[in-house]
Amino acid sequence: MPKDDNNNENKKTNATFLQIAAEASVGHLGIITPDGYPRVVPVNFVAVGETIYFHGAIRGEKFLAFHDRPKVTLSIDIPYALVPSYWRSEKYACPATQYFKSALVKGRGVIVEDADEKARALQALMEKHQPEGGYETIDPAVPHYAKALEHVGVYRVRCDSWSGKIKFGQDEPEKLQRTFIEKLRERGGPMDEATALEIEHFPAG
Amino acid sequence: MPKDDNNNENKKTNATFLQIAAEASVGHLGIITPDGYPRVVPVNFVAVGETIYFHGAIRGEKFLAFHDRPKVTLSIDIPYALVPSYWRSEKYACPATQYFKSALVKGRGVIVEDADEKARALQALMEKHQPEGGYETIDPAVPHYAKALEHVGVYRVRCDSWSGKIKFGQDEPEKLQRTFIEKLRERGGPMDEATALEIEHFPAG
Repeated sequence: MPKDDNNNENKKTNATFLQIAAEASVGHLGIITPDGYPRVVPVNFVAVGETIYFHGAIRGEKFLAFHDRPKVTLSIDIPYALVPSYWRSEKYACPATQYFKSALVKGRGVIVEDADEKARALQALMEKHQPEGGYETIDPAVPHYAKALEHVGVYRVRCDSWSGKIKFGQDEPEKLQRTFIEKLRERGGPMDEATALEIEHFPAG
Repeated sequence: MPKDDNNNENKKTNATFLQIAAEASVGHLGIITPDGYPRVVPVNFVAVGETIYFHGAIRGEKFLAFHDRPKVTLSIDIPYALVPSYWRSEKYACPATQYFKSALVKGRGVIVEDADEKARALQALMEKHQPEGGYETIDPAVPHYAKALEHVGVYRVRCDSWSGKIKFGQDEPEKLQRTFIEKLRERGGPMDEATALEIEHFPAG
């Protein structure tokens, strides 16, 4: 999954990609429909190394797009806290923003046909979204699963490249970052503590 | 925003659309890039009646796409609770799912040039994301805002049609729905109470 020519840098950034992919439950697949629209499809996905898997109808729109127009993308983005304008300006709306992590994959969509690969993909999807277990391992040798595997579409995106962006006010002066951390903890909304931790994790500079 | 030919039905479904649009902080814009990929761009957006607004760079990728390839889409989807397979099957992974609300808009992307419309759009965006206020109303007559408006790109999607899907197990037997509501409240994860309320709101049948 090339990002740039420096191997060390690649290693670091691919780890970042995998971390974002593990954190996000839903990704947004971009496909082109027969009428020429860039359709966005929310999917539960899993990244297995640099390959992305998800499932869907056996002969639905993902099947058609992957068959006929296999240039696809997947946006993996995690919205964090909204930062109100008045934390920075008493007068103007302009500084209002939302922090986030995001990755965009460009790649080739592949229809998975092999029952073993389908089973492994769905098992990986389960391990990501239901890590506590509570089901028999997905295996085409189990008759119930063999039948289910025949009727589900499994899709793979082979990543050709990806780009990422992490926005936690890294460009802000350290003093302002400390203020934001305090204000987030004071406000205590659903994503506020997680956002404060990320600002601490990606310090100014 | 046509959905079908029945006016009453339209009224009801457009209200659903506006409710989903008001609930979602982030939408996923689909555009086609010059190299032919269906690019997905997360955006903070606002629906003003049947028009969708968001902002971005004055001459960035949204500008280019809206200028050259104005067939665009916006997916507005809100993930709710993950429903583990073992709430339904002691043995198999197949019933694992995630509940959600979603709407997909197909439309035409328009670059907003008029300073007054830009100001109204950004004001609506602020009122959605920062309802508590705390800033002067955005107005091109205010010099600080006049300058800011010149340097921000504002984009509009004129909805040609939309489709929506709401999944809260409406097809499940009533008894199973009651079990899920109990189990969600017992688990008490971040989206579990909200999901239980939605199942109650969209009963079986």
